[in-house]
Amino acid sequence: MSLPLILITNDDGFEASGLAALVDAAKNFGEVVVITPDGSRSGMGHAITMHIPLRIQLYKTENGIEYYRTNGTSVDCVKLGQRVVLRNRKIDLLLSGINHGSNSSVSIIYSGTMAAAIEASFEGTPAIGFSLLDYSHKADFSAAVVFAKQIIQKVLQNGLPKHICLNVNIPKLPLNEIKGIKITRQTLGYWYEDLEEHIDPFGGKYYWLAGHLENLEKEATDTCEWALQNGYVAVTPVHFDMTSHQTIDKLKYLEYD
Amino acid sequence: MSLPLILITNDDGFEASGLAALVDAAKNFGEVVVITPDGSRSGMGHAITMHIPLRIQLYKTENGIEYYRTNGTSVDCVKLGQRVVLRNRKIDLLLSGINHGSNSSVSIIYSGTMAAAIEASFEGTPAIGFSLLDYSHKADFSAAVVFAKQIIQKVLQNGLPKHICLNVNIPKLPLNEIKGIKITRQTLGYWYEDLEEHIDPFGGKYYWLAGHLENLEKEATDTCEWALQNGYVAVTPVHFDMTSHQTIDKLKYLEYD
Repeated sequence: MSLPLILITNDDGFEASGLAALVDAAKNFGEVVVITPDGSRSGMGHAITMHIPLRIQLYKTENGIEYYRTNGTSVDCVKLGQRVVLRNRKIDLLLSGINHGSNSSVSIIYSGTMAAAIEASFEGTPAIGFSLLDYSHKADFSAAVVFAKQIIQKVLQNGLPKHICLNVNIPKLPLNEIKGIKITRQTLGYWYEDLEEHIDPFGGKYYWLAGHLENLEKEATDTCEWALQNGYVAVTPVHFDMTSHQTIDKLKYLEYD
Repeated sequence: MSLPLILITNDDGFEASGLAALVDAAKNFGEVVVITPDGSRSGMGHAITMHIPLRIQLYKTENGIEYYRTNGTSVDCVKLGQRVVLRNRKIDLLLSGINHGSNSSVSIIYSGTMAAAIEASFEGTPAIGFSLLDYSHKADFSAAVVFAKQIIQKVLQNGLPKHICLNVNIPKLPLNEIKGIKITRQTLGYWYEDLEEHIDPFGGKYYWLAGHLENLEKEATDTCEWALQNGYVAVTPVHFDMTSHQTIDKLKYLEYD
């Protein structure tokens, strides 16, 4: 039996320590190939590169693992992996991360990390995005690696339902303070942006997004936010059907032949 | 009673004829403000601008409508509208488009047009993204404008359920050949990328995404793709909860305390 083929990407770029942590977590589970952006693509959501030529380069081979980088986005990494680097070989598992910072609640929609996992799920590849609730470049990924190994092993054994990927968020806590793993749902919430106003040396105004997450269901105990705030790793199953099925009947007033 | 406040954006940029068409469709329904990117942001999904200063400029006032443009994305346009231009005034309707090209099926996830509508829905603003199935710069938006007016009027009258937005796709047909409007669900499908390989004058390889939509449920008759192929305007209600609720119980094997 051949080893599982595991493609790893991220949105923090090829130099991120979260990437090294994820390679460390995954390397003993199969044949690993790494394709990442050549710098940060945080907050780029499901962006793809349409207007400039997309390039990809093998920049190192280490412990038998090939590392590629591209000028594209995290989603481009998946597409380049599927078609150019792996030339339509069956990918058994796509891993993305470990992200520096949370992708809980609505952050999933802004996240390049999760966009890569979602992209892989389109073709039915099992996929997991990992995020640690620590934005620091020097974040301590040691507990995250332990949980990533557990989850990778179990998903390789059990598979995932077709077109489903996992959004795994890990609290910023030492290993012995993390209580376990909860299967959760996406917390209803949004980023409220304060939009900091600054003035450049030439008198021009500019803005930085400077928001905070508004949790719209603070009382719920089955959400990713609850799990994280209570010391659990939060695992949310994600699908890409954005239809609000329960709304279809309510809109029949718009329909006519 | 004051007029409804309508914010318009797009992802094709301030010069797109689809934007002029949408302003034309909306202008008689309320107070209109336009904020768009300063060029194309197609395929940028839910990207936000985090690493460069975000700027916004009032570039014209025409028929009482203020037009702003920004170096940001379509999602940034919504955030700048909410906080900077409209200073937390209640927006009654966010309109995005009319996009040059389809946003049916999984294209919704790559779409800046729909990302703007989804962003507005986070705070509970009713929102509609419009797309015409014609990529041409010189596309004929006349039929699209007729349907946009109908849908805008009905949504202003009836509202939308909270946190729901609409993905409206209009077939590339003359008005008298469009059969009506169907409420649909997102077609299960994905973009298969062929990734065209080219060689630059210096011998370097580069790639262009060059894909086609794989419809994974060609037999279904309640999908957006079916409606469009059969001459109907497709209206899909969209929510931003990406949880696969039906998968939660199947993943309990990962859970522990």
